Amino acid sequence: MALIDEVLTEISTVMHQVDEKQLAQAEAVITKDRRIFVLGAGRSGLMVKGFAMRLMHIGYTVFVIGETITPSIMPGDVLVAVSGSGTTGSVVEPAQRAAENGVDVIGVTSNANSPLAQLGVATIIVPGATKAGDGVASIQLLSTLFDQSVHVTLDVLTLMISRRDHVSNDTAKATHSNME
Amino acid sequence: MALIDEVLTEISTVMHQVDEKQLAQAEAVITKDRRIFVLGAGRSGLMVKGFAMRLMHIGYTVFVIGETITPSIMPGDVLVAVSGSGTTGSVVEPAQRAAENGVDVIGVTSNANSPLAQLGVATIIVPGATKAGDGVASIQLLSTLFDQSVHVTLDVLTLMISRRDHVSNDTAKATHSNME
Amino acid sequence: MALIDEVLTEISTVMHQVDEKQLAQAEAVITKDRRIFVLGAGRSGLMVKGFAMRLMHIGYTVFVIGETITPSIMPGDVLVAVSGSGTTGSVVEPAQRAAENGVDVIGVTSNANSPLAQLGVATIIVPGATKAGDGVASIQLLSTLFDQSVHVTLDVLTLMISRRDHVSNDTAKATHSNME
Amino acid sequence: MALIDEVLTEISTVMHQVDEKQLAQAEAVITKDRRIFVLGAGRSGLMVKGFAMRLMHIGYTVFVIGETITPSIMPGDVLVAVSGSGTTGSVVEPAQRAAENGVDVIGVTSNANSPLAQLGVATIIVPGATKAGDGVASIQLLSTLFDQSVHVTLDVLTLMISRRDHVSNDTAKATHSNME
Repeated sequence: MALIDEVLTEISTVMHQVDEKQLAQAEAVITKDRRIFVLGAGRSGLMVKGFAMRLMHIGYTVFVIGETITPSIMPGDVLVAVSGSGTTGSVVEPAQRAAENGVDVIGVTSNANSPLAQLGVATIIVPGATKAGDGVASIQLLSTLFDQSVHVTLDVLTLMISRRDHVSNDTAKATHSNME
Repeated sequence: MALIDEVLTEISTVMHQVDEKQLAQAEAVITKDRRIFVLGAGRSGLMVKGFAMRLMHIGYTVFVIGETITPSIMPGDVLVAVSGSGTTGSVVEPAQRAAENGVDVIGVTSNANSPLAQLGVATIIVPGATKAGDGVASIQLLSTLFDQSVHVTLDVLTLMISRRDHVSNDTAKATHSNME
Repeated sequence: MALIDEVLTEISTVMHQVDEKQLAQAEAVITKDRRIFVLGAGRSGLMVKGFAMRLMHIGYTVFVIGETITPSIMPGDVLVAVSGSGTTGSVVEPAQRAAENGVDVIGVTSNANSPLAQLGVATIIVPGATKAGDGVASIQLLSTLFDQSVHVTLDVLTLMISRRDHVSNDTAKATHSNME
Repeated sequence: MALIDEVLTEISTVMHQVDEKQLAQAEAVITKDRRIFVLGAGRSGLMVKGFAMRLMHIGYTVFVIGETITPSIMPGDVLVAVSGSGTTGSVVEPAQRAAENGVDVIGVTSNANSPLAQLGVATIIVPGATKAGDGVASIQLLSTLFDQSVHVTLDVLTLMISRRDHVSNDTAKATHSNME
């Protein structure tokens, strides 16, 4: 189907611009002795929740900003913050405050010149089209291409972490929610 | 205001039928060496999330069934399950399965004859009106009186636990999310 | 039980300071031809979600800021914003922006001198203890007394609206989610 | 990066097995005069929420089962239900009940022989690896490949619908939440 091929080509174009070194830097920040917090709005928020879920599956202590049981974030914690434009107020302002207070922020954004791209100890540029007009052009609506590429990017990062940690699929399965 | 007085009287009537011994039994199950899971649908779900949030504030490891980072529940864990009628499928079925697998269930319901009231190691009957017609009659819509009374009941339980554990307000404040 | 009585007395003390005229002003703003948005963080957020759920049950078009299917808020819409201290950034800043753009804000707060108390077309002061130290003193942790009193206040408001609109319990029941 | 290429190849392999005719059948069911409900657990739930958000952006009335303001589902409504294995209890049981009550179910699953694949008026088979072992094999954990492929599939479906409806990117932008 032509439409499927066009979308796959868009995602592939973006993913080939994701920098392996940036992924490795993010990987190095995410270790088991640290608490990982995630933050995002809209569909970016859904993607970073998916990442948090997998980190939990492979044995990390993870919290989603805005969910019920999320404690205060402290110096030494890690915050993964996602915003296509890199300017979303409800994401960038808390991330900025966190960074100033000794939290290690990993920013994920389409826009290398945005505030979010500047403030972290690691930054992953995922140059998919956003609703602000950043990144690789797309036939899809709003920031869909960014969301799709963030999905793949964070899953590749998960794969890198799980291999580094020698976590098997069966171990991950045992942690998966059994109340569905 | 007459309406406020009527509602307060309703809540008071229900709360005076909540059994102190049942609260003490629930308190005894909730200890810091165990993981506490909570489960509820609709407004009961909101109330039990509020309880989970406070348990986190006072130092417990808590998870909300259905939220992103909730792991599998295991024998030895505690499950607090709330349903006014005690028959809500999405609450009672998972609670039943959990109980069969060695999870200590604390059921909170208006209906002492319901399945949920039978399956746990502890049960708290909060006899507020529900939309199924259980409990103390109410001028309020649906299960509002049940929700209000569950709110107060779980907060009294929190107070009992925090006093037992000697947790101060300042300690709780330090854990409260600082990303709001 | 002494603890239950103390908590009920606290709630009653707060509720008798809630101003009937403020409730009537809020009621007048909430009409069926308008879209109602709600906003709150932490346990205040849970309470305002409970209010949104009931407004849906009695036939209103309601949206929760931060949930999946919430559209952009527009001039003429209503925003119910809850914050105990009246200063929570993630609540007050969006509320301020909304008010400037022609949205009718109803602020619910413990602190009559807070920014949130000043910016709306209607304000409901619920002077329960908050973690910032506002309101009626409490033996309970953090802003628990505020949350409880907001719960009752918004349910009384719901009752006023449903009576004005002649909505019966059976009508509300028919709209209640049947997928639980 | 080799890992990125492997993941892209996996997604591409799955997407080339998604049947254009099944997408067209689903598209035909989703029309503006109907209410669309979505349902999913875990990462499938996140994907179907992303779909619901986009449907809202392009002018549909959409609800997420389990969110605050979701009303009862009625005969004539549409339910999009996603489960990799097609057997997830909290998804399949409500979908089954809905189908029996005259709701038009669109099932999205990896397993063409599963209950979910049988019960709908339309079914989209997305044969990505799931944690139950269905579908195209994957180096990724659990049902990651299924989630990624569902993401792309539902976005392609959105693109088909938005083109049919002549919705522009600017129209979608105007509906996008402005409270982030």
